[in-house]
Amino acid sequence: MPELSRRQLVSGAALAAGAVVLRPTLAAAGPGPTGGAGTVTADVVVVGAGLAGLTAARTLTAAGRSVVVLEARDRVGGRTLNHPLPGGHVADLGGTWIGPTQNAVAALAAELGLATFEQVDVGQAVYYRDGVRTTYPSGGATGGAPPDPTILPDLLAVITLVDEMSKSVPVGAPWTASNAEEWDSQTFDTWLREHTVSPQTRKVASAAFNALFGGEGREISLLYALWYVACAGDEQNPGTFERLIDVQGGAQERRFVDGAQSLSLRMAGALGGRVHLSAPVRKVTQTANGVQVASERLSVTASHAILAVPPTLAARIEFDPPLPTSRDHYTQRSPQGRLIKVEAIYARPFWREAGLSGAVVSDTGPGKICYDVTPADGSLGGLLAFVGGDEARRWGDDHEALKTAVVAQFVTFFGPQAASPSEVVVQDWSDEVWSRGAPVHLLGPGALTQDREAIWAPVGRLHWAGTETATFWHGYMDGAITSGRRAAAEVLGS
Amino acid sequence: MPELSRRQLVSGAALAAGAVVLRPTLAAAGPGPTGGAGTVTADVVVVGAGLAGLTAARTLTAAGRSVVVLEARDRVGGRTLNHPLPGGHVADLGGTWIGPTQNAVAALAAELGLATFEQVDVGQAVYYRDGVRTTYPSGGATGGAPPDPTILPDLLAVITLVDEMSKSVPVGAPWTASNAEEWDSQTFDTWLREHTVSPQTRKVASAAFNALFGGEGREISLLYALWYVACAGDEQNPGTFERLIDVQGGAQERRFVDGAQSLSLRMAGALGGRVHLSAPVRKVTQTANGVQVASERLSVTASHAILAVPPTLAARIEFDPPLPTSRDHYTQRSPQGRLIKVEAIYARPFWREAGLSGAVVSDTGPGKICYDVTPADGSLGGLLAFVGGDEARRWGDDHEALKTAVVAQFVTFFGPQAASPSEVVVQDWSDEVWSRGAPVHLLGPGALTQDREAIWAPVGRLHWAGTETATFWHGYMDGAITSGRRAAAEVLGS
Repeated sequence: MPELSRRQLVSGAALAAGAVVLRPTLAAAGPGPTGGAGTVTADVVVVGAGLAGLTAARTLTAAGRSVVVLEARDRVGGRTLNHPLPGGHVADLGGTWIGPTQNAVAALAAELGLATFEQVDVGQAVYYRDGVRTTYPSGGATGGAPPDPTILPDLLAVITLVDEMSKSVPVGAPWTASNAEEWDSQTFDTWLREHTVSPQTRKVASAAFNALFGGEGREISLLYALWYVACAGDEQNPGTFERLIDVQGGAQERRFVDGAQSLSLRMAGALGGRVHLSAPVRKVTQTANGVQVASERLSVTASHAILAVPPTLAARIEFDPPLPTSRDHYTQRSPQGRLIKVEAIYARPFWREAGLSGAVVSDTGPGKICYDVTPADGSLGGLLAFVGGDEARRWGDDHEALKTAVVAQFVTFFGPQAASPSEVVVQDWSDEVWSRGAPVHLLGPGALTQDREAIWAPVGRLHWAGTETATFWHGYMDGAITSGRRAAAEVLGS
Repeated sequence: MPELSRRQLVSGAALAAGAVVLRPTLAAAGPGPTGGAGTVTADVVVVGAGLAGLTAARTLTAAGRSVVVLEARDRVGGRTLNHPLPGGHVADLGGTWIGPTQNAVAALAAELGLATFEQVDVGQAVYYRDGVRTTYPSGGATGGAPPDPTILPDLLAVITLVDEMSKSVPVGAPWTASNAEEWDSQTFDTWLREHTVSPQTRKVASAAFNALFGGEGREISLLYALWYVACAGDEQNPGTFERLIDVQGGAQERRFVDGAQSLSLRMAGALGGRVHLSAPVRKVTQTANGVQVASERLSVTASHAILAVPPTLAARIEFDPPLPTSRDHYTQRSPQGRLIKVEAIYARPFWREAGLSGAVVSDTGPGKICYDVTPADGSLGGLLAFVGGDEARRWGDDHEALKTAVVAQFVTFFGPQAASPSEVVVQDWSDEVWSRGAPVHLLGPGALTQDREAIWAPVGRLHWAGTETATFWHGYMDGAITSGRRAAAEVLGS
């Protein structure tokens, strides 16, 4: 069995810069997979070495099961990705923040010894409307929303209503909500148009949508939007919209000192040779006695398989026998969002000196939602722009033009010093063939109510994981982790 | 090169019954593909031997190009399928009818010497509402719609409005319609609820939707619905909703004596050894000089490839280099409808003796829209029930129960003689891994306006065909044929 080398543990770029310090703990002695000549045998085969798959593998390994993880990419971490910065720092090009009620990711970080730090949320945020720049207190009374009198009444009414409606959506079975059929027959855009007065509200909502979903309100059903909100909590604390969008007290509260990919890098380190990179899975065969999972590098025979990949990727694997129609039709209706992160690196976080928090809400693009992503020690500066939905479609074909446009926006927002970044990084998740988009799938009208349990119901010996199967923090790192535990528990309980 | 045998030309079931008379004409001498040892070379490789792919291959062959067609199934015809009946007759288990303005399919039928006959549209149709059966004249003043006074005002208003709005949707670029963004931000269901008074109207509309789209109004955007109507015509005659749903003067006007699959069987016969069955394509590689298409049976090197498969299947092929993001995201947003045909065969069309046309509109399922599908000579009787959308999801897992339920419906609609069919056939297109649904893709909000030309724009040497790319009779056999011609013209013109 090939050992997972240090080279394989970090992205090529990270290693080239020699920046990421990794301390992979090799797996303690335990039952490992056996076999030879291109085929190995294990208790469980896991497809996908993102947070969901690695958590599943970690859980199963701890329970004494032998596990093989097959990962298509030459790195682990899925939709998290560390990009090396000078001084040993990293930029998060994928999932970045954690916040309250995200208990699983917090516990895992503690277990792995990964430190977090507070997202800066002091100073003035920038609101850019109709070509006019104003500022307002970050983390103030309006949460992240700009105190624009033409939008605040709309926003407060809509958020109150969304929170209220979301409470009637059971996170484990959204299709059983009493209004499920009505809410799943319309787009969120339709509902928003009906419940807002000001066109500016819809522009700001679209800005938030672009960043939250990598999409537009037309692309998701009202039921999916409400379920997404309902999932933004835990067993004790019902989800709220505010918890999705807030920094303090919300999903953008803390970052990882070593980058969010370090969660996966550490787990993979502990799993050692159980993780096989550059092994895209092409075929899954299921018999009465087991499963056979064929990748381009090796095949695995196991009792159970956990498929920890987004539904739109799972659909591209050949299954023998074919999956039930409801599962296949569900995967046909589970497209990924379109999200690009653009990050500019500066010698220092100069905007802080001007009393700016780095946060932006803009009604024009490409970047409509921005954040300060300066490393923990503040030894260099980082600004992030989310480019999602229609803006990502507009700019996705020309990343160089996008860099120029975003830097020009930063100059408008933060002043002339923003014109000279030391580096600008573009991460377009739709161009990654092993993600096909980000941050999460966008379920349009019908998808949640039509095929229902197909979203996560095991098919014989096949179990589904990934944040797209999560019932808390659906679409987030926390959801990926709980989904991996749930899938592992299914296998252990079967 | 393996010859296309008579065995391969018909479905196994058809051959087993020895019922289908085929007269394949072997290809006249001409440039054929060359090569050996699992790899062949041709000018053009066509993926998919449905109407689109075979038409493309036929057009290119006529222009002197060498062509190889790779088909995943062990038969040709895609979403058309002949099922043998006693006496040499056939039942159409897929695409069935042709009608006015479907000029391409009519011309092809004439070219291939295939006879058509009129769909019966005389006598009384059955309307089943709230458990009460009434009858009304088939093909009367209301077209196919039941003359229910609680729905007629709604229906006439809605159809008038749909026809009117559809005229502003350019068939070749629906995203340029002046209201495109608004219409593509809502579901058809949202629009219908706003423009109807009676809940019964929505039930009857849903019945029509189930049969037309294999879906529900929530699954498609208003823009897609209007475009679909706009496409139901030709260059001289703008599309109308009536032409979609009518028998006389509409898309259900005529049937093929030998079944609609005979179009493909004849074309494949003429193409002879150029058509390779049981050859699912797994990978398409494109270089500056050509394409390489790898199937499970053989690989083809060619100057161009025409991919004549539904987008949701094209998405499952590996492309090297990967397709542009806009194309991939479009295919993630192009799910197939869910449609089942249930056909009961009787010793004779006994309902005709009672003055019934065989047509049904029912507000309860599983079958909500039914037709007489008796063969041309009336020597035996056939009744068809469309089971689509939510009804297909409800019944798709138990085809035996579905047979029983549909026959019970036929007894309710047509009397006790319906209780004893000689045969009941269920064709569930979603269970077919090489279709994944029928009759057509269902484009939800956003799909048509977001990725736009990706629906049919060539990618280098790759050209897209299939009824999902058609600009007239989108979703119909006629659209498949014109798409094949258009793709062939792209290759010939390049």
